[in-house]
Amino acid sequence: MSDEQDYPGYREPTLSVLKRFGATVWSEIRARTTRGEFEGLVLPRSETADEHHVSLKLASGYNVGLRHDTIEDVVKLGFRRAEYAVPEEEFPYDPAKPRVILLGTGGTIASRLDYRTGAVIPAFSPGELYGSVPELADVCNLETEKLFGVFSENIGAEHWRILAERCGRAIEEGYQGIVIGHGTDTMHHTAAALTYMVRDTPIPIVLVGSQRSSDRPSSDAAQNLINATSVAAHGDVAEVLVCMFGPTSERYNLLHRGTRVRKMHSSFRSTFRTLGDVPLAMVEKGKIELIQRDFLKRDPERRPDVHACFEDRTTLLYYYPNMNADVIHGLLDHGYRGIVLAGTGLGHVNSAAFPALERARDEGVQVYMTLQTLWGFVQMYVYETGREILERGVVPLGNMLPEVAYVKLGWALARWPDDPEQVRAFMTTPVHHDMTPREPVEGYLVFQGGVPEVQEFLRTIWM
Amino acid sequence: MSDEQDYPGYREPTLSVLKRFGATVWSEIRARTTRGEFEGLVLPRSETADEHHVSLKLASGYNVGLRHDTIEDVVKLGFRRAEYAVPEEEFPYDPAKPRVILLGTGGTIASRLDYRTGAVIPAFSPGELYGSVPELADVCNLETEKLFGVFSENIGAEHWRILAERCGRAIEEGYQGIVIGHGTDTMHHTAAALTYMVRDTPIPIVLVGSQRSSDRPSSDAAQNLINATSVAAHGDVAEVLVCMFGPTSERYNLLHRGTRVRKMHSSFRSTFRTLGDVPLAMVEKGKIELIQRDFLKRDPERRPDVHACFEDRTTLLYYYPNMNADVIHGLLDHGYRGIVLAGTGLGHVNSAAFPALERARDEGVQVYMTLQTLWGFVQMYVYETGREILERGVVPLGNMLPEVAYVKLGWALARWPDDPEQVRAFMTTPVHHDMTPREPVEGYLVFQGGVPEVQEFLRTIWM
Repeated sequence: MSDEQDYPGYREPTLSVLKRFGATVWSEIRARTTRGEFEGLVLPRSETADEHHVSLKLASGYNVGLRHDTIEDVVKLGFRRAEYAVPEEEFPYDPAKPRVILLGTGGTIASRLDYRTGAVIPAFSPGELYGSVPELADVCNLETEKLFGVFSENIGAEHWRILAERCGRAIEEGYQGIVIGHGTDTMHHTAAALTYMVRDTPIPIVLVGSQRSSDRPSSDAAQNLINATSVAAHGDVAEVLVCMFGPTSERYNLLHRGTRVRKMHSSFRSTFRTLGDVPLAMVEKGKIELIQRDFLKRDPERRPDVHACFEDRTTLLYYYPNMNADVIHGLLDHGYRGIVLAGTGLGHVNSAAFPALERARDEGVQVYMTLQTLWGFVQMYVYETGREILERGVVPLGNMLPEVAYVKLGWALARWPDDPEQVRAFMTTPVHHDMTPREPVEGYLVFQGGVPEVQEFLRTIWM
Repeated sequence: MSDEQDYPGYREPTLSVLKRFGATVWSEIRARTTRGEFEGLVLPRSETADEHHVSLKLASGYNVGLRHDTIEDVVKLGFRRAEYAVPEEEFPYDPAKPRVILLGTGGTIASRLDYRTGAVIPAFSPGELYGSVPELADVCNLETEKLFGVFSENIGAEHWRILAERCGRAIEEGYQGIVIGHGTDTMHHTAAALTYMVRDTPIPIVLVGSQRSSDRPSSDAAQNLINATSVAAHGDVAEVLVCMFGPTSERYNLLHRGTRVRKMHSSFRSTFRTLGDVPLAMVEKGKIELIQRDFLKRDPERRPDVHACFEDRTTLLYYYPNMNADVIHGLLDHGYRGIVLAGTGLGHVNSAAFPALERARDEGVQVYMTLQTLWGFVQMYVYETGREILERGVVPLGNMLPEVAYVKLGWALARWPDDPEQVRAFMTTPVHHDMTPREPVEGYLVFQGGVPEVQEFLRTIWM
């Protein structure tokens, strides 16, 4: 057989190492490496993968990449036949159900477990998805379109623009809802970007992903996809949303606003949290239970306002003690037009930064203040330092999250490149609750929605 | 009377404005300004305050600074006589009690309410503190020393060095505990810095502050001070600690490790949280209830290892989508020797940053990876991107907090300026739990210590 059949995706120099030990793809092996011993299943490599690593699926469900030159010995333990194709069944069409489009960007949401091999197999066409998650057919008529395949840490303004424009067209095409499959690393940034780029959407735009790929027993992929699709098809919230695992064990998802959500844990499924507010809704088996009532409602008559633009010379800077002003001067030297600071306390940086802030003001660079505490409000009138920073032209942004402020500023600077006053007015105007007048008592640290005894307890202690 | 008696601390141009309306210090006024109407008490200004603002204490307890040129009219409503001095009583000496030194750095912890005027009056000498918080005499024999008076957002390496050296001397002088009064903005950074600068301390070193000054009914100042002083005098944990308000209403404080604590809310009293672990202890009315058992114990025989040094060319960078490599190049151009990244997901930045990371590696600049999710672990072997970043010499730091990693790196680079391998070895070695092998189920987002029903509930849902 050819290398492509036995070692799909592998290239030199790794290919030779596998051939030396006869470790074809789907072999179970024990590899001794300079970094320890690993036992698992040799996985095929994608076309875009590098040429230096063997992909091994461990019993834990995690994959590990073994660099070819660290491999000292390989013992072949067995072989499991691969199942490449997802069993495809035609997605049933029901004229009574809404039409939803699932836009693919990358990430593991649309993948499926092959139970015999333990491998993750991409499932993305409607037929493949129906074969993997048949419940989707109860929700809507699903169509899919792959826009690009990018790890979410590599998603940037270019992808936001493509997504925003595609959302605009999908609205014109009459879909009743949009679902966007997205890697979780930067899902909250993309949700914020689409909030500003696609204003007044008449239908829900729901981002979804999974923290654990569908080949792990604890995967959240299917539940997330069912609930996100239900929100897109039937939900009444016509905003840009994130629908991900809720805090309790496999019971429900939480629906977060794109402007108030942040990824707060690297590996937990309940990683996405609404900060400084309560989530919009709980979604359990596709059923939406609203927590908030104040949102933009679905309205097929509304025309969306799409502006897919972003000023690349925008940056976000988390202040740290002992910071030298040259960090800010460096940004100004490189021509940055907008800076979001995440200050300490109520919105502070050290006085060493003041000359750089004065330079930014004098050069017309817009500087805004948010908080690295993530919870709470910028209040720059309380202390001397805050007032001194205000005098240097830094504009406070209430309880806007630093990452949201960064995305909002980049968008506003591109939207009104010659009108700094308009940019400032927009930045300080609440949009989809990116700033709120106050924080509910359950808004700090954790929202334990739907559990009355804990809600009551939280109300008691967080006053 | 002289201006200094009627308008203490005020200078031109603000002095003329006050004189025009006869609004002496301690007058109750209603001021009409371009920013709205404010009613409150005119406060004296400190010598270091600027000359542009009138300080007004509002009924809410907050102070507001009115810029002189925004004031359009002032109506005088009344006058309250000032009480300048804190009633000073001699701090009782009890030979049976431990000696504790309170080091002052600034912040509002050592201030006192004058009930008639509503003014905050600094109380710092033992006699003044005894007059304000008489319970302190039940705890220890307290001595005080003001090292400097700095808003904590301005505290930097220079202050950390002074503090570390003073702690070293205080240990030699035979104190049984050290309390450090500190503004809350950067208290956690200072706690981390002292952890590395004063290793093997034989006695507790406890940082304390207050989120609400003692002139507000909800002030946490007295409770925090009593509990922190009790930990310093009687506690068995000889580490650098933060002792601040716990999560429940005015009942107890939490004792946090300097290496695992972060300020998470701009204004709540329960702002300091142990992240990725449970706190060390609860402290209620001076009584310490341990939650953890694994810590460095008090031992008067142990000699501390003090190295008060810091490499100023160290920086912390929170990654954001669309980041251009020039942000990192700018830091390298400015001669930075160490960079801590706070990446997305399991420890990622975009591939656009790779050339800059390669340059850092080639120029011998140490780069480390932490997480902007704040909770969870860096795991760079799981995805392609992680492995590619590792190959560029970036070193993963488990669940070390970004701010702690920054302080640790700055210290290590100064401690071993010519030995990069020693720096790397130290960075990747856990010190006082700055990295832990795993995260307890109660370690995510909120620790509701001491409430069994909530603990049980949390154990159920966070698996």
